[in-house]
Amino acid sequence: MRIRFEPFGITTQAEAGMNLLQAAQAAGVEIESVCGGKGTCGKCKVLASRGLAEPTRLELRSLSEAELAQGYRLACQAIISGDVEVVVPEESRRSRVSILAEGIQGELVNDPWIRTIVMKVDPPSLDYQLGDTERVTAQFAAMNYGQFNPTLNALQQLPNAIREQDGVINLVMIDDQVVEIHAGSIPPRILGMAFDIGTTTVVGYLIDMATRKQVAIASLLNPQTRYGDDVVSRIEFSGKESGLATLQAEIINAINTIINETTSTAGVSKQDIYGLTLVGNTTMQHLLLGVSPAAMAHSPYVPAFVEMRCLKAAELGIRVHPEAHTWILPNIAGWVGADTTAVILATNLQHHDGIALAIDIGTNGEMALGSRERLLACSTAAGPAFEGAHLSCGMRAADGAVDMVQVNGDLHWHTIGNAPPRGICGSGLVDLVAEMLRNGVLSENGTMVSADELNNAPSKALLAQRLSGDGRQRAFMIADPSQGAGGRALAITQRDIRELQLAKGAIRAGIEILMRELGVTATDVKRVYLAGAFGNYIKPASALAIGLIPHFPNAEIVPVGNAAGSGARMALLSASARQEAADLVRRVEYLELSGRPDFQEQFAEAMLF
Amino acid sequence: MRIRFEPFGITTQAEAGMNLLQAAQAAGVEIESVCGGKGTCGKCKVLASRGLAEPTRLELRSLSEAELAQGYRLACQAIISGDVEVVVPEESRRSRVSILAEGIQGELVNDPWIRTIVMKVDPPSLDYQLGDTERVTAQFAAMNYGQFNPTLNALQQLPNAIREQDGVINLVMIDDQVVEIHAGSIPPRILGMAFDIGTTTVVGYLIDMATRKQVAIASLLNPQTRYGDDVVSRIEFSGKESGLATLQAEIINAINTIINETTSTAGVSKQDIYGLTLVGNTTMQHLLLGVSPAAMAHSPYVPAFVEMRCLKAAELGIRVHPEAHTWILPNIAGWVGADTTAVILATNLQHHDGIALAIDIGTNGEMALGSRERLLACSTAAGPAFEGAHLSCGMRAADGAVDMVQVNGDLHWHTIGNAPPRGICGSGLVDLVAEMLRNGVLSENGTMVSADELNNAPSKALLAQRLSGDGRQRAFMIADPSQGAGGRALAITQRDIRELQLAKGAIRAGIEILMRELGVTATDVKRVYLAGAFGNYIKPASALAIGLIPHFPNAEIVPVGNAAGSGARMALLSASARQEAADLVRRVEYLELSGRPDFQEQFAEAMLF
Repeated sequence: MRIRFEPFGITTQAEAGMNLLQAAQAAGVEIESVCGGKGTCGKCKVLASRGLAEPTRLELRSLSEAELAQGYRLACQAIISGDVEVVVPEESRRSRVSILAEGIQGELVNDPWIRTIVMKVDPPSLDYQLGDTERVTAQFAAMNYGQFNPTLNALQQLPNAIREQDGVINLVMIDDQVVEIHAGSIPPRILGMAFDIGTTTVVGYLIDMATRKQVAIASLLNPQTRYGDDVVSRIEFSGKESGLATLQAEIINAINTIINETTSTAGVSKQDIYGLTLVGNTTMQHLLLGVSPAAMAHSPYVPAFVEMRCLKAAELGIRVHPEAHTWILPNIAGWVGADTTAVILATNLQHHDGIALAIDIGTNGEMALGSRERLLACSTAAGPAFEGAHLSCGMRAADGAVDMVQVNGDLHWHTIGNAPPRGICGSGLVDLVAEMLRNGVLSENGTMVSADELNNAPSKALLAQRLSGDGRQRAFMIADPSQGAGGRALAITQRDIRELQLAKGAIRAGIEILMRELGVTATDVKRVYLAGAFGNYIKPASALAIGLIPHFPNAEIVPVGNAAGSGARMALLSASARQEAADLVRRVEYLELSGRPDFQEQFAEAMLF
Repeated sequence: MRIRFEPFGITTQAEAGMNLLQAAQAAGVEIESVCGGKGTCGKCKVLASRGLAEPTRLELRSLSEAELAQGYRLACQAIISGDVEVVVPEESRRSRVSILAEGIQGELVNDPWIRTIVMKVDPPSLDYQLGDTERVTAQFAAMNYGQFNPTLNALQQLPNAIREQDGVINLVMIDDQVVEIHAGSIPPRILGMAFDIGTTTVVGYLIDMATRKQVAIASLLNPQTRYGDDVVSRIEFSGKESGLATLQAEIINAINTIINETTSTAGVSKQDIYGLTLVGNTTMQHLLLGVSPAAMAHSPYVPAFVEMRCLKAAELGIRVHPEAHTWILPNIAGWVGADTTAVILATNLQHHDGIALAIDIGTNGEMALGSRERLLACSTAAGPAFEGAHLSCGMRAADGAVDMVQVNGDLHWHTIGNAPPRGICGSGLVDLVAEMLRNGVLSENGTMVSADELNNAPSKALLAQRLSGDGRQRAFMIADPSQGAGGRALAITQRDIRELQLAKGAIRAGIEILMRELGVTATDVKRVYLAGAFGNYIKPASALAIGLIPHFPNAEIVPVGNAAGSGARMALLSASARQEAADLVRRVEYLELSGRPDFQEQFAEAMLF
């Protein structure tokens, strides 16, 4: 069947029985799919009139009468039965998201593990009849470089290199291995890359290993997202036939794309990248290596591996120098991954004198609490709401996302790119709920008041006009059709509020349990590191107002941006930092919240505002 | 142009300007080419009448008037200018050669470095919430196996394997690395292969690493032979564009062919081969690794590398288990290779109380002399004559080769396969010359007497009839046209005798120099190991008669067959034997003969019979 996707003008062939989402993926048309094609998130709405089987039960539940009448369908549910013309409305298109790439930079030992050497090797004679490697070995010994240990590639380069410029050669060494040998006294530039592989976003930092400076940065939406937005749906997909291989290929592909982009920006050669570090949650690390994460999805939630691993780039299909050492940073447990290890490394938590807390909210929420005496960490499956998932009005931090909200008589908002509002992202959501609480639109238990109730206070008249509906359908309008993108209104519903309560309740309960387990209270905490979206996008005051974090009267609040990325860069630059990361796996105590009755209690309580 | 090769019925396309040998090689038609296409050996004679440029000066020198009249050409010189019909006569075809595969077997320490382990791993629970690798690590510690260190492949296998049969898994370990993990208590068979890569012949031994028994053996003509028969012509070819890559691909291909043949004979899987050892002369080792041997061809004759190397099979394109450890045994110097190291290992020379000599005659002649106190080794570029090269009547030990000669009134001979004689191989040649000396057909300085001189002794009348010609053209007929293959006579010429004198003189001079350098005489030598063709094919009595080796009055003469292959097998079976080989590189003193005036003297003297 011929399937045409507008407004892209892309036509593709598809077989009857496939759904439109599959056809779109095959054609490279990017359609939102938060639930991974299960028909539950309602994000993959498209307009299509003919050539499709009747709407499914899930579509009838997800789409309004008016939408069905206009020809809206869920792409993941609409089964192809003939030629189809599809219009993908803007709100259903994937778009480039804002990426949090900057972070902090900790102190680093200067212990270069990738380096260049220049030397002059004596020529052979009948009296000094030593082979090429033997003469280089002698020179290594004379210069105190230890054993000369060339790779096959370097060995193949040696005979010509050593004869081209009177024995003057330059070498590139990774740890104690020589990986490149060339003639002359000018060694190549030595580069490295650090990657933060988020569930949603992949960021790559290109670093000059000699100057220790960042020379380029690039990021991408994690292409695995099209097989499911959250970790659990990716684990599910990895269990399908060739699912694991597909997810691995997608992330390797993204890594290679970022490498191409950064090296081309910087005008350098990929072949000069000799080292990589990769952080990500435990599932991302498994998918990256093509190791099944299936056991993590059910109790007792164990991963296949946690410890640090070093591979050759070529083993993974990463297209840099084939011998490049590729460090997979260690995970702490199935649900506290190498990204958290990197956050601890970047915030130096393991050396703190006083109690410090680090919270990283990405697609999941992980947190670590403690000092150099003892460190605890836990994870809460709470994140997606803060990235716009599972909310009728939610979206990622992309153009058209409401990212700031303030009430000043009436509701005022700001969108990313100053575009007409298409949805609301995490920071806007927390602001909005904080303002709704402050202005009495929301009660402490999270129930939206009625317009009538709010009208009792005349100063709230403008806000009251934004309220409509009843019960779970009650909604608070953010933008009316004249303001919203595509002439559509934007509103937050009672159901959205409940989703947010679940998410913020989980994170707050996690913090409370960590403090209880360590035997401290909020007053004991001396510093709070807010990593990820937190602190850079989410206003700490709003987070406090909705109770996402407790009040820490004695703590300095330090936004640290993408601390996971910072930790990855530190581990790239320093072998001792890497060793410290490896040791963290044994030092950090992981708390499994699912097995704890006290977590359920805390959670129930923390859902209240 | 269309080139047709008869009697094979093979037709191929070739471009004008190519020569017939190149066209034959491209079409897979095997034509002898001892000199590697230089037009000097005259072994690539073919019949072809049209479509070729005029005969070259080299052809006019190499071919007789009669041959030119019949349409004989040298394939390497005949430039294609149109369609050609080529007939490859039998004597110009390559054929399977007799391979010396058996050897001795030294004492071995039982130190398995490839092994299998079966274990039961405890299941995880919320109270024992450890990842898969962590639980295997615990089991490794409990069983005293050290650190659990899986390859990427093994890590990918682990999650499924560990859940399939209640945690019972079997593992294959190479050294301290786990390369395979499967469910259940039945581990795979573990195999290894030892290779002796001769200039002329490649032999592979398939070994069961658990029982330490040989399960299959196979051999091939080294396919590099088509680019030159001896080491020097291969080094030259390796300097041409893509020459090195071609020679490397040819030998890897031969190795893979032998692996296919042996595993298919034994009914086992290539994937179960986890270790390999490879010996060969230094040039063969360089070509195998794709490392240029160019510097070995001229003074000061240095190789790129000598020491032992370990690679992964996959790095070399050897198709066994990709992680199989592939040990390239160490060379002693540019012209004393790993094959000699292996001969020393197999004969245990480095532990001898008394003085022992080991001589290995293959395409070159290498020898080692000494005891546990001191070991010397040298090489003489002398071998090819003993493999039939550079002689008008010479051929390899293949069907139709005269391999034994005796004079009893008249000349009597035996051929391999009892076929009509096509040529004479090394053992036949040494026999023949010994008999010619004994019967006065040859003088002490190597001059063939005239028929008249010999007729003075009536008992020599039958032999005298075999003599003809004068000066360098003087010849001694072995078989007349009624006996010879293809109705051609077989004779040895005065020039052939001179070639043999050069070869035997070099070997004898090498032995003399070794003894002089060590400060011993032939009476001090307690044991003589004859390796390679020597002892198994060449009769020691004949070798003594022509002065190839001195008379050792107190020595036990021990034929050791393919001792290089034996050494390779020992290094495969035992890591300590491999370590001993690595140490030999430092222990054995290499004597460079080319720099020594005393060698020239000895050589001149040793050329006499």
